[in-house]
Amino acid sequence: VEQGNDTELQKLLVEFHYADIAEILDELNLDQAVYVIKLLDSETTSDILKELDEGIREKVLRSLSTKEIAEEVEELDSDDAADIIAELPEERQQAVIEQIEDEEHKAEITELLTYDEDSAGGLMAKELVKVYETWTVAGCMRRIRGQAEEVTRVHSVYVVNKEEKLIGRLSLKDLIVAKNEKKIADIVKVNVDYVNVNENVEEVAKIMAKYDLEAIPVVDDNKTLLGRITIDDIVDVMKEEAEKDYQLAAGITSDVEADDSILELTKARLPWLLIGMFGGIGAASIINGFSDAMLKFPALLMFIPLIQATAGNVGVQSSAIVVQGLTNNTVDGKILSRLLKEFFLGLVNGLAIAAIVLVISHFVFETSYLESLTICVALITVIIMAALIGTFVPIFLDKRGIDAAVATGPFITTSNDVFGIFIYFLIAKMILQF
Amino acid sequence: VEQGNDTELQKLLVEFHYADIAEILDELNLDQAVYVIKLLDSETTSDILKELDEGIREKVLRSLSTKEIAEEVEELDSDDAADIIAELPEERQQAVIEQIEDEEHKAEITELLTYDEDSAGGLMAKELVKVYETWTVAGCMRRIRGQAEEVTRVHSVYVVNKEEKLIGRLSLKDLIVAKNEKKIADIVKVNVDYVNVNENVEEVAKIMAKYDLEAIPVVDDNKTLLGRITIDDIVDVMKEEAEKDYQLAAGITSDVEADDSILELTKARLPWLLIGMFGGIGAASIINGFSDAMLKFPALLMFIPLIQATAGNVGVQSSAIVVQGLTNNTVDGKILSRLLKEFFLGLVNGLAIAAIVLVISHFVFETSYLESLTICVALITVIIMAALIGTFVPIFLDKRGIDAAVATGPFITTSNDVFGIFIYFLIAKMILQF
Repeated sequence: VEQGNDTELQKLLVEFHYADIAEILDELNLDQAVYVIKLLDSETTSDILKELDEGIREKVLRSLSTKEIAEEVEELDSDDAADIIAELPEERQQAVIEQIEDEEHKAEITELLTYDEDSAGGLMAKELVKVYETWTVAGCMRRIRGQAEEVTRVHSVYVVNKEEKLIGRLSLKDLIVAKNEKKIADIVKVNVDYVNVNENVEEVAKIMAKYDLEAIPVVDDNKTLLGRITIDDIVDVMKEEAEKDYQLAAGITSDVEADDSILELTKARLPWLLIGMFGGIGAASIINGFSDAMLKFPALLMFIPLIQATAGNVGVQSSAIVVQGLTNNTVDGKILSRLLKEFFLGLVNGLAIAAIVLVISHFVFETSYLESLTICVALITVIIMAALIGTFVPIFLDKRGIDAAVATGPFITTSNDVFGIFIYFLIAKMILQF
Repeated sequence: VEQGNDTELQKLLVEFHYADIAEILDELNLDQAVYVIKLLDSETTSDILKELDEGIREKVLRSLSTKEIAEEVEELDSDDAADIIAELPEERQQAVIEQIEDEEHKAEITELLTYDEDSAGGLMAKELVKVYETWTVAGCMRRIRGQAEEVTRVHSVYVVNKEEKLIGRLSLKDLIVAKNEKKIADIVKVNVDYVNVNENVEEVAKIMAKYDLEAIPVVDDNKTLLGRITIDDIVDVMKEEAEKDYQLAAGITSDVEADDSILELTKARLPWLLIGMFGGIGAASIINGFSDAMLKFPALLMFIPLIQATAGNVGVQSSAIVVQGLTNNTVDGKILSRLLKEFFLGLVNGLAIAAIVLVISHFVFETSYLESLTICVALITVIIMAALIGTFVPIFLDKRGIDAAVATGPFITTSNDVFGIFIYFLIAKMILQF
C-alpha cells in the first residue's frame, strides 16, 4: 500500500470509517502513519487522532507542528480537543492553544483543561443545545437549527432560565411532537438529572448507568449549566475502570498491554512479585522456626502447598465478591452480619474439602489419625480465616477511602499464604504437642 | 413507612425516579415490595419491575397474576417485556402472552422470545422510527410524530426502501436542519453500521464501542430491518461481561452477589476450591515422592511456599494480560514472538527476584552454596515456565473457540503451583545429586 501511490490510497481510505483507519495506523510504523495522516483532510485526521492508541498518538503529535495540531484540534469537539492537548508536554500546550483560530473554541478548551481529568469537568464537552424557558417551540426549533450544526449529536435540549441556571430538559422528540406555539416552560421536563462539575467520573458513570441516561448536564455549585457528558465517554470510562480492576486483581500495578515493552511490563509486574517473594520468605521463616518439630512429622510438610493454595483461593474469591459488591453499591455497612455469613460459608466449604482430604491423606498417604486430624482442622480454620480476611480487608479499605480493588489478587493471596501456614503449624503444635 | 398510610406513601413515591424505587424495594421484604408495587400506577411499576434485582423480580412476579403481569408488560418496550417474560416458567409465559391486549406488541414480544438471549436478536427492541426513502422531509416529520410517541427515545431514524430493506439512517438533527421539501433519499446517510440478528452480543458491544454508536439497527440475512439495539442495553452487557471475567479470574464459576444465599455462594465457589485441593494433593504426592532425599536437605522444604507463590503470581499476571488483549482484539496470532517476549520478561523478573532470594537465603537461613544455587535456578526456571504457560494457555483456548477467561485465576494458579513444585525438585535432584 505504501508505495507512494497517493491518490489511489486517498480514494481507498475515504471509504473507511475513521475508527478503522486508526486501527490500521496503529499497526504501521511512525513515518507511514504520519504520511497517511498528512494525506487525509483535517476533519478525518482529527477523528483518527482521537481514536489512535495513546502511545502512537503521542509519537504522531510529536512529529506534527503546533500549527498542524491546532488545525486538527479545531475540528474536534471541545472535550476531545482538550484531551489531546492535555497529553502534550506543558510548553507545547500553550503554543497549540494560542494558534487555535476560533476564539470561542479556544476559551472552551482552556476552561476544560482546568478541570481534573477524573472529574465530571474533565470529561464533559462544552457543545450542547441550550434554550431559554421563555422561548416558544417554533422559535426554539429555529434557534436549534443554528446551534445543532456545531454539536455532533443532539441528545437532549437543556432548558435554562435567564441566569443560565439549569431548570430542565427537553428531548428532540418532545420538540417534534409539541405544537409550535407552545412555550418551552410548558413542555420542559423539570425532573432532570445533573452532576456537579467536581463529581468523580466513576460516580457519573454509576448515575448514568442506573438511570439509563444517554447524556447528562454538568453544572457548577450554583446550578449554572457548564457542559454535558455523553454516554460514549462513559462507556470508555467503564471499560478503563473494569480493566484497571481486572489488572489489579491479577497483580499488575500500572495500565499495560500485551504489546508494551519488556521494561514497561517489568515495571508493572515486578512490584507484586516482590511482595509475593517477601511473603514466601516469611513462610520460609515460619517453617524454619518449626523445623525441628517438623522433622518428627514429615507427613505434615507434604500438605503445606495444599494449605497455602486453599488459603489463597478462598481469599481471592471472598475479596472479589466484596470488591464487586462495593463497585455496584450492593454491599452496605453491616460488616458484622457479612463476616458471620462468610464464617458459615467458610465452615461449609471447609467441611466439604476437609472430608475429602481426610480420606485421601489417611488412605493414600497413610498419615496417622492425629496427623489427619491436624490437617483437617487446619484446613477448616484456614478457609474460615481466609474468607474473613478476604471480606474484611476490602470493606475496611473502602471505609478508609482507599480503592478496595488493590486488596484483591496477589495482595490477599500473599497475606493468606503466610497466615495460613502459620495457623497450620500452630494447630499442629496444639494437636501433636511438639 | 410501611404503616398503611397509603396516600401519603403514594405521594412520596411519585417524586422518586423508578430506579430509586427499585433500589428501595430491593431492600424490603417480599410482602412489602408487592404491596408498594400494587399501590403505584402500572407505568411506574413496569419500569420498576425492569430495574429490580433479578432474584427479587422473580419473587414479585410469582406473587402477581398472569393478568397483572400482562398489564405491566404492556407498558414496557418490547425488549424489556420479552426479557421479563423469558424469566417466567414456561407454562406462565404462554398465559401472560395470551393476555396482552395490544396485538402488535404481542407479536413483537413473541418474535423476540424466539431469539437466543446472547444474540443481537435477544437484545434488540422492535420500537424504532422508520421512514421510506421516497418520502419528503415534511411528510417524514409528520409521520415521525406518530411513530415517535411509542418509542421511548429516538436515536436515529432508519431509512428503508419499499422492500423494508435498510438503506441508511438519518439523525433527528439532520431532519430538523433539512429543508421541508427535500426528499429523504437526498439527505439519507448511506454509510450506516448494522448488525445481523444472529450476531453475538459481545461482538455488537465491540462494534458500538468502537464506532461510538448510540443505537444500531438489526437486520436479517436479507438486510430487512428487524429492530434496533440502544447503547443503554450495551452498557449492561459490558458490565455483565466485565463482572463475569472478573469473577472467573477470582475462581467464581457462576454469577453471584455478596447478598446471595450461602448455598448459592457455595455452589459458585466450591468447584474451584476442589480443583485447588486436587492441585494441593498433587503437590503432596510430589513431595512424598522425593521425601527421603528431602530429609537430607531440609532447607529446601522451607522454600516450597516461595516457589509456589511465585509460580502462581507470574502465571496470573501473564494470563491476565493476554486475556485482556484477546478481549480488546489487540493480541494477534503471532504466538511464537509473544512466547519469546514472555521468556525474556520471565528471565528479567526471575534474575531480579533470584538475586534477592540468594542473599537472604544464604545469610539469613544459612543455606549451603549448592542449596542456594538450587533455589535460585529453580526460581528463574519456574518464573519463565509460569510466564510461558500463562501466555500460551489463554491463546490456545481462544484459538479453540473457548472463552480464554476461564484460564485465569485459580486454574492457572493451581497448575503452576503443582508444576512449579515439580520443577523445583527436579532441579534440586540435578544440582544436589540425590
